[in-house]
Amino acid sequence: MSLLECRLERELLSTEEESAIAQVGKARELYQLSFSGRLGHDLPRHGNKEKINSGLKLSTSRHRFDRVDIGNQPVAPFEYLDFLETVVFPHTVNTFSTKFLGHMTAPLPEFITEVAGVISRMNQNQVKVETSNVLTLLERQVLGAVHHKIYRKQAGFYESYMQCPESCLGVVTGGGTLANITSLSYALNSAFRADGNFAGLTKEGLVSALNHYGFKDVVVIGSKRMHYSVDKAAKLLGLGERNVIRLETDSHGRVDLAQMRSNLEECRKGKIHVLALIGIAGATETGSVDPLEEIGALAAEFGVHFHADAAWGGAYTLSSNHRELVKGIEMADTVTICAHKQLYIPMGTSLCIFKSPGFASHSENNTAYQCKKGSYDLGRYTIEGSRPASILMLHALLNLWGDAGMGHVFDTTLSLTQNFTGKIKSSENFLLVQEPALNIVVYRYIPVTLREKVLTKEKLTYAEIELINEINKKIQSEQFINGNSFVSSTTLVNGEEEVVVFRAVFCNPLTRENDLDALLADQAKIARDIEIA
Amino acid sequence: MSLLECRLERELLSTEEESAIAQVGKARELYQLSFSGRLGHDLPRHGNKEKINSGLKLSTSRHRFDRVDIGNQPVAPFEYLDFLETVVFPHTVNTFSTKFLGHMTAPLPEFITEVAGVISRMNQNQVKVETSNVLTLLERQVLGAVHHKIYRKQAGFYESYMQCPESCLGVVTGGGTLANITSLSYALNSAFRADGNFAGLTKEGLVSALNHYGFKDVVVIGSKRMHYSVDKAAKLLGLGERNVIRLETDSHGRVDLAQMRSNLEECRKGKIHVLALIGIAGATETGSVDPLEEIGALAAEFGVHFHADAAWGGAYTLSSNHRELVKGIEMADTVTICAHKQLYIPMGTSLCIFKSPGFASHSENNTAYQCKKGSYDLGRYTIEGSRPASILMLHALLNLWGDAGMGHVFDTTLSLTQNFTGKIKSSENFLLVQEPALNIVVYRYIPVTLREKVLTKEKLTYAEIELINEINKKIQSEQFINGNSFVSSTTLVNGEEEVVVFRAVFCNPLTRENDLDALLADQAKIARDIEIA
Repeated sequence: MSLLECRLERELLSTEEESAIAQVGKARELYQLSFSGRLGHDLPRHGNKEKINSGLKLSTSRHRFDRVDIGNQPVAPFEYLDFLETVVFPHTVNTFSTKFLGHMTAPLPEFITEVAGVISRMNQNQVKVETSNVLTLLERQVLGAVHHKIYRKQAGFYESYMQCPESCLGVVTGGGTLANITSLSYALNSAFRADGNFAGLTKEGLVSALNHYGFKDVVVIGSKRMHYSVDKAAKLLGLGERNVIRLETDSHGRVDLAQMRSNLEECRKGKIHVLALIGIAGATETGSVDPLEEIGALAAEFGVHFHADAAWGGAYTLSSNHRELVKGIEMADTVTICAHKQLYIPMGTSLCIFKSPGFASHSENNTAYQCKKGSYDLGRYTIEGSRPASILMLHALLNLWGDAGMGHVFDTTLSLTQNFTGKIKSSENFLLVQEPALNIVVYRYIPVTLREKVLTKEKLTYAEIELINEINKKIQSEQFINGNSFVSSTTLVNGEEEVVVFRAVFCNPLTRENDLDALLADQAKIARDIEIA
Repeated sequence: MSLLECRLERELLSTEEESAIAQVGKARELYQLSFSGRLGHDLPRHGNKEKINSGLKLSTSRHRFDRVDIGNQPVAPFEYLDFLETVVFPHTVNTFSTKFLGHMTAPLPEFITEVAGVISRMNQNQVKVETSNVLTLLERQVLGAVHHKIYRKQAGFYESYMQCPESCLGVVTGGGTLANITSLSYALNSAFRADGNFAGLTKEGLVSALNHYGFKDVVVIGSKRMHYSVDKAAKLLGLGERNVIRLETDSHGRVDLAQMRSNLEECRKGKIHVLALIGIAGATETGSVDPLEEIGALAAEFGVHFHADAAWGGAYTLSSNHRELVKGIEMADTVTICAHKQLYIPMGTSLCIFKSPGFASHSENNTAYQCKKGSYDLGRYTIEGSRPASILMLHALLNLWGDAGMGHVFDTTLSLTQNFTGKIKSSENFLLVQEPALNIVVYRYIPVTLREKVLTKEKLTYAEIELINEINKKIQSEQFINGNSFVSSTTLVNGEEEVVVFRAVFCNPLTRENDLDALLADQAKIARDIEIA
């Protein structure tokens, strides 16, 4: 009913009914407030079409965001729009730029942003059937389809488990961190399950679990390239960060398997429970891929849970031409994949896929008003409660791009990576730090005065090492502020030495060769200016 | 550059460059796939304008979602659109209906869905400044503004802490469960912080922490109405569900304070660490509000962390006319508020507000590539990593609705609640189970044959109790399938007795009195049909 109809009808009604309708009329007005299609018409370019960044430092912008009384007086939509267009949008980061190569964020396909809009307009809640209905089935199907891409089980497996409420082939989470936490928490619940008089970790807690099972401690083992969410998981689960064992890597950033074996043996002797071996398929900092098959074999030999953190590289399983890049992933008991990274959907949707349909059974949640035993409610198996139906975006991507489309995009970004690596190798300004396994390149600028020494691999003094680190840090932060192009930066620790590097991430398939040239020229110019100063 | 321009340019280029451009051209095509504005034009009504639900049971729909080979062959957008419009959208749940009164989901204001669209199109990542820039400041500001609504500190407090990178007035999470987990985890990290030779829980884990601080165990204390996410937190943190102490309540669903005190005393004597007292401001099942001031006083007396789970009721602090409904909330050390509940933004955005700017300091995360000490990066203080800029929706709501708009909406939904409660009281079919504290009503249908006995409070036999429970369950599930109106159902445990009730949630301010009448008539008719059968 329109406001006008509402007013007309009012004449025929009692005073009480009238005031009720006035109330609804006002609520309806509040609901109809709109930017009339004018919001974000300039996006995704954020008002600065070429630039990554407007160049305003946060220390300068701070005062624009210092009022705590927002909301005391309502603001008209056009006034708010003006605020967004002058104070906010121009000073966000143009993550869609073809020269934004610093983080795991790429432009989104047009249809994905359309589906994103529909998801918020439907506002379903995936925690239970009563607020999602068939989207519950669709979520289970996408999890099943991704399970199939990884594990290639027979048709009968999926017939039995994919849509069976008592089984769970994976969960959707708000991000990779939660996916990793889910894997480690559920693996712990599964290892320390109810047994005899012991009611299980989930009921009795960690101290009782260790006593019952006769362990002194619990550790997680992986390489030094593990994502910091593993530390978060260890903190959360009460293991403590010191129980995350970070092993050395080879020159390709792959975990040292001999060290892994000797750690497993020591833990066995020392009555220490190994919660999981972690195999990285696309390290956040370097893109390195661990030898997943060998880790899988070790996990099987020692009877330990194997988690593949494929937040970045897991996407390659969705293209039959690229699955070899993460071969061995099918040996993992659980796999993390971030859909908001190389599956081109917006923040934040990740998956944790479970090899065994019964893996989550020791971690189930039930309540009286939802997630009852026997129900289809997905909340039975998730750490999170209320959740959006973001899985529909991944469903759309699988359908519209398909295996071939994914393959094309991966071909493009991998070929950009090779192209860029070649440019680094042939440049006198830069040094490649590690041969890229996937589509992340770590490299660094070498100051003119030190090039000879670096080329001949002469030993550098501490001051010289610091000099290289400092100039690389400076270049990166000035490049971000200038906003003409962007890579990120990290510090890799090799033995005693800290190595500051640039980190370029190639996941924008619309980037072209001239963008790469422009980026390197940008960095070289900034470097020269610093060196002269 | 358009595809045409791209083709024209091609003629002037070398073969190698040509093939690179062809590759980008194909990627661009994949990016330009679109539903051409046709997607969801029928939403938010989901194709069934009046109905809550299409009536198809999941057991019937299952076979439509049983293929695992989605994506093997890409599908054209129009074909996919057809699938969504026939197989998916009509069989979702119409959470925007004025007769959908079963869960904590309401229609979204038009401007909120517009902002939601922009958020996904910008695709910022709030974990760090390099992918969010001023949206980091805006998030800190909204957290500060909500902090101010709750705690009303002086202006100088917010000048010092709101935009200071070393302090944290709260975090944005993907949902209330994570907000509660954040509070309890950080409170534990803070209690078991580094001390002398002990490096802290975060480094050394729970077993060492208990040893160092001389505690035998850790418990959380609240009422039996606590949300199940508290159990999830206890499982995750290694405490175990048995260490969640669920106290009895009075007839209004408020926690028994005498029991709370005696539990605190017992724990003190028994060397058991009380991680937190939990005060509920709007219980999920009944809307009950605990006596927050008295719990706050107990927490202060015993030196215990006080967490207010105001996932539902915390929204009332945003209206100066309604803050009294959750009075005492300002005594809590941490407060959970779900923005996707009574703040009318889509799934899933919640807040955990910290009274003390230093509360999160023992839970900080740092890495070499982001979240470094001293940086503005919000990821330093969150359990989650990558996160969308969903805070912008809450910022828009605060600005466009403001205090007065929020107040109007709350007036409307509270008055609907009172109206509905009156109808239940005067109906011969239904019995009010508890006087509503906020805008959730629990009530039940009484079969004709038992009305006399129930009215005169005669003792019922076990079979009669079961009969009432069963018919209430049946009515609710048939009502959902029929799809003409909807309330949810839960089972309240009173001593030995299980009481199945309807749960009506009034958060849609567009609902009108005739919707309430229609809903009750719908239930009465279903009940009569069951009784006759």
